[in-house]
Order: sequence, then C-alpha cells, then structure tokens
Amino acid sequence: MDAASFLKRLIVSANPSGRARLTRQARKAIELCQALMSDRGEVSGAVHARAALAACDELSEAGMALFFDLLVAEFSPDPRQVLRAADGYRAQPTQENLLEVQRVVAPPRQELFHRLNMAPGGSATLVAIRRGVLKGLKSHPEWRVIDADLVQLFRSWFNPGFLKLERIDWRTPAIILEQLIHYEAVHEIASWTDLRRRLEADRRCFAFFHPALPEQPIIFIEVALTKGISAAVQPLLDLDSPVTDPEAADTAMFYSITSCQEGLRGIPFGNLLIKRVAQELGQEFPRIRQFATLSPVPGFGAWLTSVKDQLASTVAGRAVSESLKWLEDDQWFKRKPSARLQADLMSLCAYYLLWVKQGPEPADSVARFHLGNGAQLERINWLADISQQGLQRCAGIMVNYLYRLGDVEDNHESYVREHRVVASRQLTKLARDCPLFADQVNATTTRATPAAKN
Amino acid sequence: MDAASFLKRLIVSANPSGRARLTRQARKAIELCQALMSDRGEVSGAVHARAALAACDELSEAGMALFFDLLVAEFSPDPRQVLRAADGYRAQPTQENLLEVQRVVAPPRQELFHRLNMAPGGSATLVAIRRGVLKGLKSHPEWRVIDADLVQLFRSWFNPGFLKLERIDWRTPAIILEQLIHYEAVHEIASWTDLRRRLEADRRCFAFFHPALPEQPIIFIEVALTKGISAAVQPLLDLDSPVTDPEAADTAMFYSITSCQEGLRGIPFGNLLIKRVAQELGQEFPRIRQFATLSPVPGFGAWLTSVKDQLASTVAGRAVSESLKWLEDDQWFKRKPSARLQADLMSLCAYYLLWVKQGPEPADSVARFHLGNGAQLERINWLADISQQGLQRCAGIMVNYLYRLGDVEDNHESYVREHRVVASRQLTKLARDCPLFADQVNATTTRATPAAKN
Amino acid sequence: MDAASFLKRLIVSANPSGRARLTRQARKAIELCQALMSDRGEVSGAVHARAALAACDELSEAGMALFFDLLVAEFSPDPRQVLRAADGYRAQPTQENLLEVQRVVAPPRQELFHRLNMAPGGSATLVAIRRGVLKGLKSHPEWRVIDADLVQLFRSWFNPGFLKLERIDWRTPAIILEQLIHYEAVHEIASWTDLRRRLEADRRCFAFFHPALPEQPIIFIEVALTKGISAAVQPLLDLDSPVTDPEAADTAMFYSITSCQEGLRGIPFGNLLIKRVAQELGQEFPRIRQFATLSPVPGFGAWLTSVKDQLASTVAGRAVSESLKWLEDDQWFKRKPSARLQADLMSLCAYYLLWVKQGPEPADSVARFHLGNGAQLERINWLADISQQGLQRCAGIMVNYLYRLGDVEDNHESYVREHRVVASRQLTKLARDCPLFADQVNATTTRATPAAKN
Amino acid sequence: MDAASFLKRLIVSANPSGRARLTRQARKAIELCQALMSDRGEVSGAVHARAALAACDELSEAGMALFFDLLVAEFSPDPRQVLRAADGYRAQPTQENLLEVQRVVAPPRQELFHRLNMAPGGSATLVAIRRGVLKGLKSHPEWRVIDADLVQLFRSWFNPGFLKLERIDWRTPAIILEQLIHYEAVHEIASWTDLRRRLEADRRCFAFFHPALPEQPIIFIEVALTKGISAAVQPLLDLDSPVTDPEAADTAMFYSITSCQEGLRGIPFGNLLIKRVAQELGQEFPRIRQFATLSPVPGFGAWLTSVKDQLASTVAGRAVSESLKWLEDDQWFKRKPSARLQADLMSLCAYYLLWVKQGPEPADSVARFHLGNGAQLERINWLADISQQGLQRCAGIMVNYLYRLGDVEDNHESYVREHRVVASRQLTKLARDCPLFADQVNATTTRATPAAKN
Repeated sequence: MDAASFLKRLIVSANPSGRARLTRQARKAIELCQALMSDRGEVSGAVHARAALAACDELSEAGMALFFDLLVAEFSPDPRQVLRAADGYRAQPTQENLLEVQRVVAPPRQELFHRLNMAPGGSATLVAIRRGVLKGLKSHPEWRVIDADLVQLFRSWFNPGFLKLERIDWRTPAIILEQLIHYEAVHEIASWTDLRRRLEADRRCFAFFHPALPEQPIIFIEVALTKGISAAVQPLLDLDSPVTDPEAADTAMFYSITSCQEGLRGIPFGNLLIKRVAQELGQEFPRIRQFATLSPVPGFGAWLTSVKDQLASTVAGRAVSESLKWLEDDQWFKRKPSARLQADLMSLCAYYLLWVKQGPEPADSVARFHLGNGAQLERINWLADISQQGLQRCAGIMVNYLYRLGDVEDNHESYVREHRVVASRQLTKLARDCPLFADQVNATTTRATPAAKN
Repeated sequence: MDAASFLKRLIVSANPSGRARLTRQARKAIELCQALMSDRGEVSGAVHARAALAACDELSEAGMALFFDLLVAEFSPDPRQVLRAADGYRAQPTQENLLEVQRVVAPPRQELFHRLNMAPGGSATLVAIRRGVLKGLKSHPEWRVIDADLVQLFRSWFNPGFLKLERIDWRTPAIILEQLIHYEAVHEIASWTDLRRRLEADRRCFAFFHPALPEQPIIFIEVALTKGISAAVQPLLDLDSPVTDPEAADTAMFYSITSCQEGLRGIPFGNLLIKRVAQELGQEFPRIRQFATLSPVPGFGAWLTSVKDQLASTVAGRAVSESLKWLEDDQWFKRKPSARLQADLMSLCAYYLLWVKQGPEPADSVARFHLGNGAQLERINWLADISQQGLQRCAGIMVNYLYRLGDVEDNHESYVREHRVVASRQLTKLARDCPLFADQVNATTTRATPAAKN
Repeated sequence: MDAASFLKRLIVSANPSGRARLTRQARKAIELCQALMSDRGEVSGAVHARAALAACDELSEAGMALFFDLLVAEFSPDPRQVLRAADGYRAQPTQENLLEVQRVVAPPRQELFHRLNMAPGGSATLVAIRRGVLKGLKSHPEWRVIDADLVQLFRSWFNPGFLKLERIDWRTPAIILEQLIHYEAVHEIASWTDLRRRLEADRRCFAFFHPALPEQPIIFIEVALTKGISAAVQPLLDLDSPVTDPEAADTAMFYSITSCQEGLRGIPFGNLLIKRVAQELGQEFPRIRQFATLSPVPGFGAWLTSVKDQLASTVAGRAVSESLKWLEDDQWFKRKPSARLQADLMSLCAYYLLWVKQGPEPADSVARFHLGNGAQLERINWLADISQQGLQRCAGIMVNYLYRLGDVEDNHESYVREHRVVASRQLTKLARDCPLFADQVNATTTRATPAAKN
Repeated sequence: MDAASFLKRLIVSANPSGRARLTRQARKAIELCQALMSDRGEVSGAVHARAALAACDELSEAGMALFFDLLVAEFSPDPRQVLRAADGYRAQPTQENLLEVQRVVAPPRQELFHRLNMAPGGSATLVAIRRGVLKGLKSHPEWRVIDADLVQLFRSWFNPGFLKLERIDWRTPAIILEQLIHYEAVHEIASWTDLRRRLEADRRCFAFFHPALPEQPIIFIEVALTKGISAAVQPLLDLDSPVTDPEAADTAMFYSITSCQEGLRGIPFGNLLIKRVAQELGQEFPRIRQFATLSPVPGFGAWLTSVKDQLASTVAGRAVSESLKWLEDDQWFKRKPSARLQADLMSLCAYYLLWVKQGPEPADSVARFHLGNGAQLERINWLADISQQGLQRCAGIMVNYLYRLGDVEDNHESYVREHRVVASRQLTKLARDCPLFADQVNATTTRATPAAKN
C-alpha cells in the first residue's frame, strides 16, 4: 500500500460518515448481486450482471474489503442444509442423495460468479476481483473460500483447450505490445526499441490468449534462436547485437517467461506454454535440437546471506566464507573476481539448487517451476546476468534448464512422486564440492538424492 | 434404437467373444482415462487426453454403454470419504472442513472431463458423450450422475459470456450453411436454393458459436423482416416471393429457432439468442418496433384427440365434437373448411394454451419456452401452416408470441413465481368461448388465471 | 439473342418514340461521362463516376450500342492534333515533342474509363462494358478502339502482381462457391453435392481474385491428387468415389480450368495460375512429382467430319473411313467399339494435334493454350470422357498435357519463336500411323516438325 | 547528398576500375530487363522480374544513374517507326492506322515496368525507382520520359478505386505505426507516447493503403474532434491534455496530412483522403458539422524577408517595417509581442495568402493544395504554432481552411477555371489593411479578385 492510499484508509477509519458511505456502497453491490441471483436476474442476466459489475468497479479498496466480507457471509452454503443432506446420504447412500449433497455444498458464490461472467468484460472483472482477494488473503484468511470458488471456475473457464497460442511480432497491435513492456519483469523492456529487438528474425515471442480476455495476453515467453546454449543474458538483450539467420540456429533459448494476470495465479499455463512453443519452433525450424532456458536463481542471494555463519563455523567453510567477502563491495564484479570466488559461488549455487529444500521441493521457486515441468538442471553460468538485479539476487549467476522432449514426462513423474531432481553430472559434481555438502552427509540425511544425467 | 443397431446388440449379447472384445475396448478407454488422471497425465495433458478421446471414439454403442457403466463405478466420489468429511464438518463447522466436504463430494469424473477437454476437439467429443448418455438415460438411470457432471461443466464452459453471435448469410462458409440445412427441423430447408431465399435482404439469420466448437453452430434463429405480424408461414418460406426492402419493415418475425447440439440439451441459449438478436435488429433497423414469433403449437393435435370423448359428453361440446369430424379427412383443409370449424378450433387452441397444464406450466412445450422467456401470447392464426406436418400436429394453426422488450422481465418473473401466463384480450376471450371452459369453471378450479393484456 | 429480346428490338425499331427514348438515354449517359471529364468531375470523381455508371447500367442492349457509337465518335483522339504533333516531332525529334505525340494520341476514352473506375464497383462495370463490346464487335468493327482502350487498362489494372491466389474449399463463402457452379463449363457441376466432392481432401481448387472485384473469382482451376496420370475423367468426377489420402499422391491432375470474366478475355491469367498452383501444391505435398492435365480436344470432332471425304479418297484412308461409320450411331461407345476403331481414332487425333494448323499454330484451341504455356503433349486417352459432350466433341478422347517445370520455359520459347510442338515419342509415332500423314509427306510440307520428347 | 556518399562518388569518378564496375552492374541490370521483355520472359514473368529487380536493388546511386541513362537510350520508342506510322495515318486516317501510331509511340519502358511489377514487391521497387528519378531530374532532365512513363502507370495502378481507407489506432500493428512516427513531418511525433495521445478517443487517424504496398501507408491524416475550430496547434498536441468525449464534438480539425511515398509525388490522393475521411466522420459522429484544417503557411516567412525593403520604401509600410524588427530576436514571442505587431503580421499574412501569386495561383503551397481541393480560407490565427519551426517558417501563424461539403465542388471549379480564391469576409478585410495592398491597387492589377464568403 502506498502512502496515499494508507492516508485514505486512515481518514476512512477515523471518519464515521466515510465508513458509512463505504458500507452503503458495498451493500449496494451485494444487493445487485442478489438481484442477479433472483428470477428476474435469470432472464436478463447480462443487464443485471453489468449493473453488479459496475457497482463492484466503483468500490475503493476498503469498500471492496467490505464487499468480500459480505460475499463470505451471505453467499456461502447453509451449514444446516449441508448437515441435513449429509444425514440423508448416510441413511441412504443413493446417487440422488449424493447429488443433493453436491448441490447444497456448492457455494451460491459460484453461481453468482457464473452469472457475473455473462456480461461483456465479466471475466476481466472476476480476474481483478481475485487479484484483490489474493492481495488481502494474509490479513483476511476467511476470504480463502472466495479464492477457492474463483480458482474452481477459472480452472474450468481457462481450460488449456480454450487457450490460443499467438505469435507476437512487430505486426502485433500496439495495444498488446505495450502490455509486454508493462508486464515483463525478469528482464525489463526499456523501450519500444528494446521490444523491437526482441521481436526480430532471430527471436520469437509467443503468448496465450483466451477468448474472454481479448487483447490481454495471459502469459508470454521470449525466445532467442541461437547456436549452442547461451551462457549469459546481456548478449541476448543487447540492442546492437546483429540479427542472425534463424535458419542456422540449433537451440531455442527461453530467456523470459512472464505471467500477466495476477488474478490467475496458480492456474497453470507456463508448463503448457513451453511445450506448445517448443512444438511450434520444432515445426518452423527443423534444425533446432535443443530447448533450454536461461533462468535466474532468485533465492540464491538471500540464502547465501543466511548461511554465512554456518560456513564460517567449519574449517572447510571458513575459506569460502572469506572469499565471499568480495561480494560486500557493490562493484565487486568489475574488480576482476578471482577464480576462487567463481569456484566457490558456483559450487554453493549447485548445492543450493540440489540440496536446499522447502518441504520436499527445492527452495528456489524457478527451480520448482522448471523441474516440476519435467526439465533438468543442466549448467550453472558465471557472470551470466550482470544487471544490478542479477548481481544482487543471484550474484550474477544464471542457470540453464534443459527440456529434453523425450524425458520431460519421466522427469515430471519422478519429480511429482519422489521430488527427484534430475541434474547433469557436472552440476551434481559441483554441488559435492561445496563445504556444506560434507556437513549434510555427516548429518546422514535421508533426503531424495538428485539423479545425475549426462 | 433402430432395427439394425438392435440386431447388433443382440448378436453382441449372444456372442461371448464379441462381448469380451467390447469389454476389452471399454476397459482400455477407461485405463487411458486413468492414465490421464495420473501425475504423468498432468504434465502431458493434451497427449494423454488425445489418446483417451481416440479410444472413446472407437467404441460402438454397446462399448460406450460399458464405458459409461465404468465411469459411474470408478470415477464417483468415495462414500466413506464423503461421510468422514461430513462428520468432520459436523464436529467443527469451519471453512476448512467445508472445503474438504466440497473436495471429496466432487466426482473425479468432473476432473476427468476437464482434462479430456484439453485436447483439440475435446469439447466436441464431450458434447457427443453427453448425447450418448441422454439417449440411454431412460434404460440406464444410473448414468444420471454422468449427465449431472457434464451439465455442470457445460454450464461453465458454455457460459453465455463466451458465446459469439454471428450473422449467417450467403457469405458464410458452406461448411456452416450445410449444417443449417441439416439441423433445421421446424420448417425443413429443402435445398441450397431454399436456404438462399432465407438469407436474402429481407431475412436475417443468426447463430451462436463457441470458440471450442469452431464451425459448429450451437443454436440458430431465422427471422423475416415484414410489415405487420405474419399470420401464415408458407408466404415466408415461398421461394418465389419477391425480396422486399428491409428498411420498410416494422416487424421482425422469428419463424424458426433450432438447437443443433443435442448434447447441450438443457443448457439455456435460446432465451439469450432471441434477446441478442432483437437488440442487433433494433440497431440495424431503427424502424422495427415489434418482435414476434410465428410458432407451432406442437401438442395441440394430440390433446385434441385426447379430449374428443370429453367434448362429446356435454351439450355445448357435442356440436364442436361434430364439426371436428371434418379433420378425419386428410385433405380437409382443401375442402373449404367451414367458419364453424375455424371458430371451434381456434377457441379450442386458445383454451389449450391458456388452461391445459403439465404440472403448473402450460402443457405445450413451445408455449413453455416463449412464456418462460417473458413473451406473451398474442394471436392465434387460422391455416397458418398448411404443410403436412403443420396440419397434422396443430390442425394448421400457428401462434404469435410477442416479445415486448419493456415487459419481458416482468412477464418472466411472474411466470417463474406464479406460472402466470400473459395473453392478449382477444385470445383470453377466445378461450372462454370453448365449451371446456365452462366445465372447468364448474369444477371451481383454483389454478392461476391468465393475465389479459391488450 | 433470345426471342423476347429480339421482339423488343423489333418494337424499338418500329416505334420511333422507342428509338428516341433510347437515344435520349444513351445521350444522357454520355453527358454524365463528359461531366466526369470536366474540372468538377476531377474533384468529385467518385460522385460523378457513380452517376455515369448508374446511367450505363440502365441502358438496354440497344441503348448500349448507341452509347458505344458515341464513345467512338466523341472520345477518340483529334486527328488534326495527332497530325500536328507528328509534324512537330518530325521537325524537332525531341523528348518533349514525342511526349506531346503520346499525349494527343491517347484516346480521351482511356481517361474516361480511368475516372469511371474511381467509383465503387467501377471495375466490375467496365468489365461488363467490355463484354458488351466483344459481343457486338463482329457487327460493329468500329468498336475495336473501345476494346483496345479497355485491354490496355485491364492489362495494367489486372497486372499479375495484383492478383491473389486463394484456395477454394468447403470453408469458402457460398457466394463464391455458387459462381463456380455457374461458370464451370468443361465438366459441369451438377449440384452442391457434386461441388463438395470436388473440394474434398484429395482434390484442390484455386482461384485468382483481384481486390477490385471482391467475391468474384477471375479464373479457377480444379485439381485431383492422384497416383499416376489419369486416363479418364469420369472416375475423377464420380460422386461416390472414395476420398483418398492426398499424402500418398504423386501426381496433380489439372482436370478443369475456367475463366469467369468474359470481359477479361485475352488478358492472360491461365498460364500464371497453373504455375502458381503447381508451386503451392509442390510445397504442400513434397511427394508430388508430376503435374499434368486431362484435357479435351474440342476441335477434333468437327475436323473429323471435315476430312471424311479426303480420307475416303485414298486407299489407306478408305478403311479408316469405313471404321468411322461406327460413330454415326449415337450409342456407338456402348457397343464395344472395335480395337480397329480405337487405333484409327487415336492416330487421327494425334495427327490432328501435331499436324493440323490454324496459321502456324495448332488448330485445336486447348492445344494452343497448353503448348503456349510450355506444356508438352504426353498421351492420348481412349474413352476418357464418355459424357455426351465428350463423345460428340472429341469422340470420347482426352489428352494429357505434361507440365515439366524444368522444361516449361524452353518449350514456351521454342513454341513462340518457331511454333514448335513438343510431344512424347509415343504420340509422335501415333500421328505417323495416320493415313493422312503420308499424304502430307507427299506434299512435302515445310511446316515445323514436332519435337519428340520421351 | 551526404559527405560519405559524395566521397564515394569522387572515388568512383577518380577510379576507372570503379567506373567500369558500375557500368558492368548497370549493363547487367539492363540485360535482365531485356530478358524480361523477351519471349522467355513472358512465360516466366515473375522469375525474370525478380532477377531484374534484384539487380536494380544492388545498384549504388551512381550505378542507378547509369541504369536510368540506359533506360532512356534503349527503351524509348523508335523515331523512325513513329514517323512512319504518322505518315501512314496521314495518308489514311483510319482507326487501324491510329492504333498503329498509339502502338509505336508507347515506350517499351512502360511494358518493362509493367512486367517488373509482376514480381512480389515489384510495385515498391518501382516507387523507389521513381524516387531516384525525381531526385536526379534537375541534373538529368532527359530522365523526364522515365518519370512520365511511371506517372502514367502509377495513375493507373494507384487508381483511387483501388485504395483502401483504414483507420489507424492503437490496435494497428506496430510495423505500421512506426512508419507514422517516421514520416510525420508537419508536427513531428516525438515518441510512442506522443503517438498514443494522437490515437486516443478524441482523435482520429486514417490512412490510404494499396494492395500492392501492404503494410505501407501511402498517405495519412490526423484529426482532432473538438468543440469549435481550433486556433492553436500546441493544445492539440499536448501529451497531458485530457481526452474529451468525441460524442460532444462539433468540429473535425484536420491538423496534419502526410504523404509517405516520395515516389508517388504528384499522384493525387490528399484531396480524396480528406473527402473520404469527412464522410467517415460524418457517419460515425452525426453531430459533427464543421470540417476544417489547422494549417501552416510555409512560404510566409521567406516572403516576409523578401518584401522588407519594399515595405520600408512607403510611408504606410515604414511603420510596419519597424514593428517587424521584433522578429529579429529569436525569443520575440516570449517578450509579449505588441498588439501592433500582431495586427501587422496578420494583415501581411492575409495579403500574402490572397494576393501573392506564383503564376496564376497562390504562392503558398499549402494554400494551393487546400484551395485546389475546394476549401476556403477561413481564419488567420495568431501564435497558433509556437514550435521553433512554426515561429521560423510562419511567424507562429496558422490558418484554418474550411471544407464546406456543399461548396467544395463549386470552389474547386472556380479555382481551376479562374484561379479564384474563396475567403471569409474577415480575412479579405485583413488583407486590405496591409500597406502593400494600396501599392497593388495603384498598380491597377488585373489579377483575379478573391471572392468573399461569410
């Protein structure tokens, strides 16, 4: 929350009439929702839906919060009905009685959202509503039922079968291109000129669209067509790099993947997108043999800080701990970092990716995403992202995940079942060089061992 | 079931090895469905979905029946889980426990259908599957849970907000036009020449399409732009009728509305279509003031037969009963039907529409549809459909339902709440002339009185 | 001219006031053309052009003839100006003076047509005007200057670079498909069902369109994808023939090519269309190696009649002449035609194609077309078109012309320079078997010898 | 010519082998053109055309000049043929002989250009060729015949009937939008943000496209929808100006019109574009009543300098001459210009527009354009364009030309016939206030008097 909106909230809380107005507005929105659920609403769905949506759109953040509270209070299943239906089913476990349980347990909210979706632009507003719910979920855990209802509907509406893969290039309408500039977070697009370079003949960009969100990309991916697997991102982003012949490329580097709709968080598209794009590229360029990412390790920097003390406490670790002091200087990478530092950081990163967990899965979110998709950890690249963000978050390191189309399914399955991480021999070896590895072995951990792959 | 397929079934039952093959095929389809539900299935959804769909497509009718049985047996909620979750909720009626009930009560079938839909053409196959379920529902009432699951998904996928209204004209691809010829059931389209007349400048045709069923109209409506409300359908269908200037029209006659997808039965589109089309026409032709149908009364003929004896049993009815004997001759309407016959049939029809019920609603299905949409009964037309079908089913009578845009919502509401039928004064009066009306009054019925409207 | 329009003309001639009215109408059209040529016309081109076109459209055939006469009389170059400019150029042969000759020698009609073309639909009307001119050219040779002007403009407007090749299939709008049914003259399309078979997966249809004639195909070609070169057309047209897998085909058979716009006669598109289509098919089906036609020999029947006496007059020919008597029976081909008849007709046809000329070119128009395009005569097929038309015009014979893409340019060049006809060895040999060949050799003809090719 | 290319030319001239290479290249291009004109070229037009175009594209500026010389030398009509045909026509002035004159007088270049146009991209290259011809025309007046041929073809190919008006907005592909940014010369588009403001709801932008130049706007116009006629351009261009409701506008201000294709100079589109756009806007916004421009007076500044001495030489002029000294300071307009200066400059500008001629037409090029289109001079606006360019070229003054749709044709006609300039009463009066007016009257000029209009 920025200062201005905080001030506004304060005033609202302090000002009873402001509070009253908010309540009135939220109430009005709810009443329009109730009208939409009535018999009249059924016949003139779109009209009522439009009115209700308009009332929602007018709500301030605080008004929206009240509205959500009312959604929980007034559009949830009736507990007595649920229990009565359950009793009925216990007494007579027939299909009819089960259908009755299903009926009464389904929140009226879902039907409400279904009807709101009948108005033009309904889907977009519902996606925005979920964004609001997610934003406040921490302080309002009771809203999770709203979230659950929306997730269920969104999974249905945004079924992958309804998504359309579209190539994005310089022929794409500006109204879509400006959203790419807006949403791209991994490697910021600085200008239209920057964007244009990313859409030249040796680059590809694809996005998923859904008929209900026209002109709004849901997720997009940026690809460079290269010879060999890229070890650094700045050359790919360089505005002045020569445009190469895509027909000569043997590798597709996925160097950025961006979800645009915060309100669709958790609805899985990225997995699908990578696979569809690999397919498209394979057809357009039969000489392309490798599909790999050039990905950040966003959790590495913070983890590094957290293990400093542990490192310093062992003999083997102490030397490493010393060499990490280099990083304390903001400009470290300009001062010709030593081979020692490089070796230490790379083995630490390999260790982090392979052995540091959050529950049973890797601690790093990007690793979870690609490994969960069936990719494998291929290579750690030194000074691969020397942007300020890259240096801070991952000490300039980036990772290649490899999508071997023939292995993707197996990898995914063993990842889901046993949380097994497939990594190249080289990377597995790197991780072993890390002083923390010895500690862990001593602790005779029973965690899943990464599977080495060449 | 036609004779051939009955024979086939017989043979199958008689032939153990045929039976075995069928079982094997159905089992294989189910196994592919199970694979699709597994972890592997998650990552390669479309591939597994495609395989499962292909296996379904290969099933004969008998194999499909076995497949449905397995869908019920193996993809239904686990009763113990349901009861356990219900107990949990009873003990602690928290949101979490309610979500748990929702989770376990949701049939795995729904998730299966959701995943099948990820393959290209998935929606079309699922619509076909439901057609199969509906067809066998009478003899297999246990399949109703499959139906319930599909209805829930279809309501979501085919949300009116996702439908696209498209004008159909002579510029429409032939692949769509041929489906109009195929599906039109009310007033059969005899040839491409016949179709072409229905798409001329003084006609309009609109259809709803859904992105998941490309090139397959879901429902379509045919409209004639006329001066005044049409009293007969043959002039509208006449191939040689002159094409009139649509700018001069003051009335839009909806003379046919056809659902194309049997597998989407019960998912309501027709209501919406009429309203959207009225809107479109209002914008294109600001001089159009009236929106009316020219509709059959499909139940009238059968009802007439059923009340013959009752009519003959009263003094007033006996005369009517006499005049109805005309109808026994196939060619009756060519023999200059008497004014007496006309008067009798029209008052009987008015009585049928206003007073003969199926439960609390009108017995006639077309009446239920339009009245439920908020239309009103306007006029009964004599010799309005002199096709063989028209003469047989409705004694040549057709009815105009009027869609007064200002009244539609009120009409709908009072219909839904009180089953109130709005009818013109003239029609109400006609119904009173019917000898059966007196009988009914004597029986001091307490049924809802039709509301007269001028 | 049909009876009705003949009568109308009679009445017009007989009826002075009718004549006067026609003159008035033609005069009015010409005056609107003059207005369009004025300064006012320049600024409001489209408005004036529309008015002039409308006046043209209202002219009857007789009125149009008067209009053409006026176009010749009033929109031709001024002879005095031409001679004066020529004198100027003779005296001083400068660029300026040459440009002046060019200027005055250009008919104002061309500028008029140019301006008429500014109105929407202008091109279509001008194409129709040329159709009218061509129709009357025989009896009005003085209209040839109108024709010359239109040809020059059409060559420019309908520059091949502006044409768009479009695939025609069952997704094509009905408004275009019905034109295919209307125009197809070689192998009549009997119904929409017939058309549909010609657009199935193992068939292709392509048409050229021009932006100025939207929804009006200019020329279209029908192709069957087959194994080997087809020897008969009825199997290709058979409604009940199974649809084969196009991926298995090795040959593209061009079995019909139809020009739709009579008013564009002589503007060459067909040549281009065949080459573009061969290209497209080559890309879609890399396994297709041969491009061939299955073509009629439209002049063969008439020529056969014309040489009967000559045949009968020689010893060798007499026997042939005898066997040709078979053909006098309408049903001859049903009576198991003798091998003798077959041999005689085939050698006569080969002789006709290779040795019978109209000026320096082959007498057969279809032969002129394909040979001029660079194709070669490949094979003569017995009982290849047993439709009534086929039997009458070509005694059931059809010919395969082969487009060898590597030879097309050479063939074209030697055809244009020396009228050299490239034919297969087999066909050349067949022609030598014809009794007329000996006669000709005796006459020591000096005509170009067909070039044999294997 | 920039320094680099000048140097290159020097080297070329100095270096005989460079010269030889150029000659070789130009010769090669010409030979490919000759091949295209041959019989072989006819059959494989596109292939040969492509080769010839490629050879042209490789020519440097100097090589192109040689190529042009050869085009004049080798593709012009044969003088002897021309004279012989003229003699023939003189002897027998028949249609045939006239057609023969037309035939031989037509330069083979035209046929060459026609054939070059058959290759994809041919039109674009020919437009570029004309740009080269125009650029060198001053120093190579003999190239004018090439220009004349291209103009004749372009008038035909780019017939207004073939142009397509397209709305340009934020949905337009970026590849087109960037060309707007590139070409806009009147009021430079500084950035994509600037462009975006010009495409908001209260602005309109339209362009003409031709099928042969896909994705290349030919000419475009920018319009602001306003209340009343705008008196200054900076408010229209202000990035931060609020977007107003276009439905409330009563005036369409054409504030910029830009031709993109230098090679199409002289082919008139602008006139047509304004009229088509006025029509479109009239249909979309029935409340728009006025169509006006806000135009620069590009010749005013230079003329002002040229008449300084003349002004200073008369009594009345001397005072004016004094006040003009203000303008010597670059920053004059920031120093609160006096009412006196304003009055003097405005009457000088009015005088300039109405009375200063180039031949019989106004000296100002923009005035010639709009008056020639049938617009009228409406109002002179003080400090209407305070950009540096605006202050330098026109002393910050801009003019409104008014397009009264009902008068446009009359105005155009009297302008073309008598060079009559239609101006508002106010503007006519302003011009009379100018001291130079008295001089002119004394000189009893006989020039056309501007027609006053209210």
